[in-house]
Amino acid sequence: MRRNKVDKSKILDSIFQPKSIAVVGASATPGKIGYTVVKNLIESKYEGKVYPINPSATEILGLKCYPSIEEVAGEIDAAVITTPAKTVLGITEQCGKKGVKGFIVITSGFGEVGDHELEEQIVETANRFGMRVLGPNIVGVLSNSGKMNASFAPFLPFNGKAALVSQSGALLIALDAASYTRGVGFDKLVSIGNMSDIDIADTIEWLNKDDQTFCISLYVEGFKNGRSFIDVCKKAQKPIIALKAGVSAHGAAAAASHTGSLAGAAKIYGSAFQQAGVVQATDLDNLFDRTLALSLQPSLRGEHLLIITNGGGVGVLATDAAERYGIPLTFAPEDVQAELKKHMPDFGSAKNPVDITGQAGTEWYVDAVRYAMAHPWVDGLVVLYCETAVSNPQEIAEGIHQAVLESGIKDKPITVSYVGGEKSDNAMKWLVEHGIPAYAAPDTAINAMAALREYARVQEMLNDKEVIYDGVDREKALKIIADARADGRDSLTEVEAKQVFAAYGLPITQNYLAKTEDQAVELAQKIGYPVVMKVVSPDILHKSDAGGVKVNVKDEQGVREAFKTIMANSKAYKANANIHGIVIQEMAPWGTEVILGSVNDATFGPTMMFGLGGIFVEVLKDVTFRVTPVSSNQATRMIGEIRGAPILAGARGEKPRDRDALAKTICQYSNMVLDLADEITESDANPVLVYENGQGLKVVDARIILKKK
Amino acid sequence: MRRNKVDKSKILDSIFQPKSIAVVGASATPGKIGYTVVKNLIESKYEGKVYPINPSATEILGLKCYPSIEEVAGEIDAAVITTPAKTVLGITEQCGKKGVKGFIVITSGFGEVGDHELEEQIVETANRFGMRVLGPNIVGVLSNSGKMNASFAPFLPFNGKAALVSQSGALLIALDAASYTRGVGFDKLVSIGNMSDIDIADTIEWLNKDDQTFCISLYVEGFKNGRSFIDVCKKAQKPIIALKAGVSAHGAAAAASHTGSLAGAAKIYGSAFQQAGVVQATDLDNLFDRTLALSLQPSLRGEHLLIITNGGGVGVLATDAAERYGIPLTFAPEDVQAELKKHMPDFGSAKNPVDITGQAGTEWYVDAVRYAMAHPWVDGLVVLYCETAVSNPQEIAEGIHQAVLESGIKDKPITVSYVGGEKSDNAMKWLVEHGIPAYAAPDTAINAMAALREYARVQEMLNDKEVIYDGVDREKALKIIADARADGRDSLTEVEAKQVFAAYGLPITQNYLAKTEDQAVELAQKIGYPVVMKVVSPDILHKSDAGGVKVNVKDEQGVREAFKTIMANSKAYKANANIHGIVIQEMAPWGTEVILGSVNDATFGPTMMFGLGGIFVEVLKDVTFRVTPVSSNQATRMIGEIRGAPILAGARGEKPRDRDALAKTICQYSNMVLDLADEITESDANPVLVYENGQGLKVVDARIILKKK
Repeated sequence: MRRNKVDKSKILDSIFQPKSIAVVGASATPGKIGYTVVKNLIESKYEGKVYPINPSATEILGLKCYPSIEEVAGEIDAAVITTPAKTVLGITEQCGKKGVKGFIVITSGFGEVGDHELEEQIVETANRFGMRVLGPNIVGVLSNSGKMNASFAPFLPFNGKAALVSQSGALLIALDAASYTRGVGFDKLVSIGNMSDIDIADTIEWLNKDDQTFCISLYVEGFKNGRSFIDVCKKAQKPIIALKAGVSAHGAAAAASHTGSLAGAAKIYGSAFQQAGVVQATDLDNLFDRTLALSLQPSLRGEHLLIITNGGGVGVLATDAAERYGIPLTFAPEDVQAELKKHMPDFGSAKNPVDITGQAGTEWYVDAVRYAMAHPWVDGLVVLYCETAVSNPQEIAEGIHQAVLESGIKDKPITVSYVGGEKSDNAMKWLVEHGIPAYAAPDTAINAMAALREYARVQEMLNDKEVIYDGVDREKALKIIADARADGRDSLTEVEAKQVFAAYGLPITQNYLAKTEDQAVELAQKIGYPVVMKVVSPDILHKSDAGGVKVNVKDEQGVREAFKTIMANSKAYKANANIHGIVIQEMAPWGTEVILGSVNDATFGPTMMFGLGGIFVEVLKDVTFRVTPVSSNQATRMIGEIRGAPILAGARGEKPRDRDALAKTICQYSNMVLDLADEITESDANPVLVYENGQGLKVVDARIILKKK
Repeated sequence: MRRNKVDKSKILDSIFQPKSIAVVGASATPGKIGYTVVKNLIESKYEGKVYPINPSATEILGLKCYPSIEEVAGEIDAAVITTPAKTVLGITEQCGKKGVKGFIVITSGFGEVGDHELEEQIVETANRFGMRVLGPNIVGVLSNSGKMNASFAPFLPFNGKAALVSQSGALLIALDAASYTRGVGFDKLVSIGNMSDIDIADTIEWLNKDDQTFCISLYVEGFKNGRSFIDVCKKAQKPIIALKAGVSAHGAAAAASHTGSLAGAAKIYGSAFQQAGVVQATDLDNLFDRTLALSLQPSLRGEHLLIITNGGGVGVLATDAAERYGIPLTFAPEDVQAELKKHMPDFGSAKNPVDITGQAGTEWYVDAVRYAMAHPWVDGLVVLYCETAVSNPQEIAEGIHQAVLESGIKDKPITVSYVGGEKSDNAMKWLVEHGIPAYAAPDTAINAMAALREYARVQEMLNDKEVIYDGVDREKALKIIADARADGRDSLTEVEAKQVFAAYGLPITQNYLAKTEDQAVELAQKIGYPVVMKVVSPDILHKSDAGGVKVNVKDEQGVREAFKTIMANSKAYKANANIHGIVIQEMAPWGTEVILGSVNDATFGPTMMFGLGGIFVEVLKDVTFRVTPVSSNQATRMIGEIRGAPILAGARGEKPRDRDALAKTICQYSNMVLDLADEITESDANPVLVYENGQGLKVVDARIILKKK
């Protein structure tokens, strides 16, 4: 809340492109971080004023040194703090008084070693003065366009169009060096550290407005607030790619419901990225490779990928990769084939991959690329080159670039792979300098193209139909929950849970609570035979095990017998059980069993699970997750992405199930658990029976576990 | 057969390390292949005699040129042919007469453009003279240790311990150049081309005996004979790694049985490699990375992998990768942690990954690596280094190497990753030169270690229990098949198929054919009620659709009614159907449904399929394949590797199923289809009901489709 007082993005200018910088803890001793930061600012040719601050020096590296912040006459836009942790709070106060805006804390020894309190005090103090804090426990901020190395990383990164935000400082320093050897360029590197104040979302928000950033590349270990990340990413106008580290580390916490035990970091983060419109990287190489493509090329907005190659082998490998990475090839139409046939020897192939053969010289590449790029059928192009003794890699690189220019096309992506030695590597460097991403293996060029496709797909998903939630009765739901809490319970009975579901428009089976045998008969007649009868008791969670369930009860006599039996069984099962009565429920006709559920994630809040019931959930763990609210597009995607999806589509001669109704129910359910996030910690609808198209679905059993208050 | 006359490996010496070489088609014109080959032999400092052959020159590149092979006075060990395709048959004859042994045909224009006949004639002629043919349509053979570049690739590869065999010539040339930029060394490169005579298996057999080859690396597009490949690989004493290209290309051929439609190149090749003890590569980068590790390091023979790192970020990424690549981490025992704690600052972590922190200098690396390498708990080590401003990458590399030497351990693998810039790259080169594979990303170092683990695992699988097939009655099976063929049929009836199964010891349901109603009653009494009754007719494949099946027939009256009904239904379904009668079958008690099947693959011959029945096979395609014969280890692995495996292990409160009996049945089935490979093209046992441990299983329905003759 305190953050709203400060105009975020304005002050972030003072962090990421400050007009002047004070280095608090500046040192004349090589090897000290306070020395390195001053040296780096000078060596990076920073054009603003640099004020070294150190009470025991008068000059550092040729710059006048000030004993304290107050002594500086001019304005200080940003302060970089390198003094020991215990001094930082005092310095915060001083900086605040001086009117510093950006507070960059390199110093470590705070939250990461358990001292959260000091960290919070610093942020509180800083915010009080209208300052924002980057860090603590960071390497610093580096910017090529700003000619600013305000960090202890040894140099500015290889220049380029991406920005890297890293939660690991050590990795940032290593990647800074690696940007040169890999030839992947960055305008900015941001070390985000403990995120005590400015977090990844704030940084993305700022970078989204930065003219020099064309792709935002993230190394993520975890978020403090997953939802603000999603919100910011959804609004971003440029590609964002994330490598999430630590997907295997999360031990499965003991969870009260089925849903809880099936959630996991990898699944939740994967869904969250997709919902945020963020492209994912699988590993460090992949982060570099995809960042390069996303920072240089437009997205791939259709399914028609054409491959042009001079070698059959690399063509086949690329074809395999295209299928593996979700952009399988199809044959080009006749006219495309006929034209391309003119630019290759007789034994070449104009199908896809287009094999212009090992005899291919520059001209053939130029002609084929120019034609293909301009043809409306082609959505994107991957050009492969296998180094031969008779062709010139550099000339071909220049030819490819020329052909793209001549085609006049700017909204279709191209990626290139050269397999070869030093000549090929040099030609690829030239290509990258000229805006065409190039890779040393055909698979990698395809994977980069797949990233451009993924970007288009996740962005398309954001253009979503609005879901209308009509007839929601929040007050009723809260009342049911409050009553249960008043009863000293932290879970709802099936009847109560279904009432909450019904309050949010979920289709539940008809369902009434009978306290007496006669009432049971009356209710059964009202519903119509056959009926299901189940014990209702907060003390009996596993009703079947207790002998507390009778299905297919066909008449009055049956109801009377069942009532007696269930009561007797339940009391035998748990002598002092608090039995609310017996629920009389319509006997829902057979349908395909699915399960819906929710669990509150520490990072993302309420998340929604969907899967098929029975062995699919129990044996195959064939379930999928989303952060709530689940959009209509995402609900449809959930239904389609489980392995058992063909069952709902109508496998084995069955008619298709009502997936539209199911999608709507998923949206409603997700809305419910989000709306009641303060009340519900976990919930299940299991089973839900899904009927034929147009016939809808029914929630047969329900469970809600309340947040402890 | 003709090949048996020639001592293979002896003559392959003449191909891969010839004592003298004639270049037929040698040319003085730069750019011609005949010129390049002579030049390459000279530049590679080949120490044997080189005889250029060309009727219209007297000297080429300073070497005396001969008008024809006959004119050469000395012995010619190998001839490299570069003349046009139409001349090659004549030259084969001349070379044969001269006593040439190795016949290396670079020339293209044979089988690859459809001219198989000429290719066969050349091989026949060559073999007649005791020559073996490499090619045609190849780049040639390159050997660093042999100082021989007998190819038109421009130079010998970066020197190292692997041998590369490539089915793509263009790729071989490109990889030759790439070996330098990637720093992955090869002693030999072999272009295998059309494999008219010498195929991949022959080459592996030779390389297995070659002192200079420590890892055999394959780029495979397809085999001519998959079985000889498997046989040779199983016997090999050194690691073999294969990249299979074209896994997406195989269109699913229309197949008569279920099994056929589920087979596919990727699945079959994947199984074949595993059965052959061959490690697989997923793409070109992966082939290089894994080849490097396999050529330099021993296999990883246990599950205890320890990671030592100076950076948390790369440690986490490596941990994720370890899980992803099937070698998940566990914590090291207390004593290991206690000792390692001594070699790091307080805030370091001795768990796994062992984080010696960013302050780690060389000494800490040395101490940690030496200790860990020597500790019996540790099976293998991955050392990570994240480039920092305060440490020296080269010094640390030397330290790691020193520590490994000092540990005295030679049978445990180590891989390294440096994330950083040029200094790190140079240090990694140094490591590789000193036998320690090093990679630019932590994931890659883990993947390389996973290759070393995979090598150990696939090799262990080869140490298999022998399966005893007792009571096989092959003659009986052949008689049943012959009778069906005599009947003009190309498939067996259920009864016949089950008889064949029974002849190979498969447990079938009791099963008798009744021709008349009375006979049906008699047989039902013999079997015991209840029984199943099914129409037997080669003209009715889908018995249920025809109303030709009655289950749970409980008494004599039921049998009589069912007999009449089935007969009537069947005739109504197909008026002129040839009805053999009605099979009376024991009603097998309920069990877990599985499916066994076989299909003859063009490359590998009879392959065996296994999966769970019902939705598992029909919706999830949850099946697995092996090339027959399936060993006992492999059968067990098949049962364990399907997604539905927990069902057989006893999921959802069920008792475990009799997996031992199932494994035995898989072996027997595989033996049957291999033994009858000339007769059976496809078959199914579907369903097979598997009972509780010790209770075995029963084949309930069976189908055999015969090879067309």
